[in-house]
Amino acid sequence: MFITLEGGEGVGKSTQLRLLADALRSHGHDVLATREPGGSPGAEALRNLLLFGDAPLSLRAEILAHFAARFDHVEQVIRPALAAGQIVLCDRFTDSTLAYQGYGRADGDAAVLELIHVLDAQLGLRPDRTFLLEAPREVARQRLAVRKAPTDRYEQADEAFHARVIAGFQAIATHDPQRVRRIGTAQIGVEGVNSLIMKEILAVLSHG
Amino acid sequence: MFITLEGGEGVGKSTQLRLLADALRSHGHDVLATREPGGSPGAEALRNLLLFGDAPLSLRAEILAHFAARFDHVEQVIRPALAAGQIVLCDRFTDSTLAYQGYGRADGDAAVLELIHVLDAQLGLRPDRTFLLEAPREVARQRLAVRKAPTDRYEQADEAFHARVIAGFQAIATHDPQRVRRIGTAQIGVEGVNSLIMKEILAVLSHG
Repeated sequence: MFITLEGGEGVGKSTQLRLLADALRSHGHDVLATREPGGSPGAEALRNLLLFGDAPLSLRAEILAHFAARFDHVEQVIRPALAAGQIVLCDRFTDSTLAYQGYGRADGDAAVLELIHVLDAQLGLRPDRTFLLEAPREVARQRLAVRKAPTDRYEQADEAFHARVIAGFQAIATHDPQRVRRIGTAQIGVEGVNSLIMKEILAVLSHG
Repeated sequence: MFITLEGGEGVGKSTQLRLLADALRSHGHDVLATREPGGSPGAEALRNLLLFGDAPLSLRAEILAHFAARFDHVEQVIRPALAAGQIVLCDRFTDSTLAYQGYGRADGDAAVLELIHVLDAQLGLRPDRTFLLEAPREVARQRLAVRKAPTDRYEQADEAFHARVIAGFQAIATHDPQRVRRIGTAQIGVEGVNSLIMKEILAVLSHG
């Protein structure tokens, strides 16, 4: 089972990933928790170049580089883990490329979305479930303000960019409601979000 | 006009590129001489990771990363130069990805060649002429032995790999004889190769 968490900056994905991994392990499941961009040594090198490099790539080159990292991560880490029977939890995946590059940078340009769909088809791995964490941008900004991690290229982008990213995630969820569950995080708190996600995953596991 | 030089290690591509640029300039042409992987700041960062990085990518990830560099190079350097009326000379291009990854690493695996063709179609830029420089492997090895440049990932590969790369280039030339001209460099010397290439390019330019 392959589960992804998606959403804009500061919506609490990494906290939820940690809670989810702990909860599944306490139910006796073997869990691999990972993240993108990155997750394998080669993909982490590409992550560093994409997020902190001083020579920004053209839009389509940036998309290719994200998928280069993703192919490495899938082939060297995710597929072997799935083949070994682990539940794989991933912080960001292809939906983030659609939202950040396809909607955030390209504003939904049809040729750019097409490039991403072509690469996704070549990759050939879709999540079984995706949880889209949503929070008002003001709440997300307050969370980001207290972080100690270095500010990356996307966190530094302007508010109009983040608005397009959030709208992009909503469009993705609307097009694929069976796979993507939207969760408003501001109203129900960290534990409430974790409970919602666990309930859904345990339901899927009991039907499988 | 977009012209590429291709071939295995040590066949004299960079020497010919320099001679060709000089000769075309002496005929009054505005020339941009460039090379892959690299040719733009972002692509050079990817080149460094691909050729000298210590975390080798999976085969398909390596192909994606080469195309990420190529998209950046084409969009930020090659297309603007062509639009400005320059003749662009490039040391290696998509044929090298076919030869090194498609034939050298994947031994002509159909799914790998298909991935490269899909990416090439998205790129949408083909050379007007490609000169495939060929030399006996023994001659190429002697040339490489006297070089001062650091030895990269591909130069370090074994002889069976280089044999597959050379056979791959031959297959590419066979499939596309109109675009790809094979030139045996050992028999005619550096100046002879330059004359052959110049003659062909001037013929194309006079017909255009």
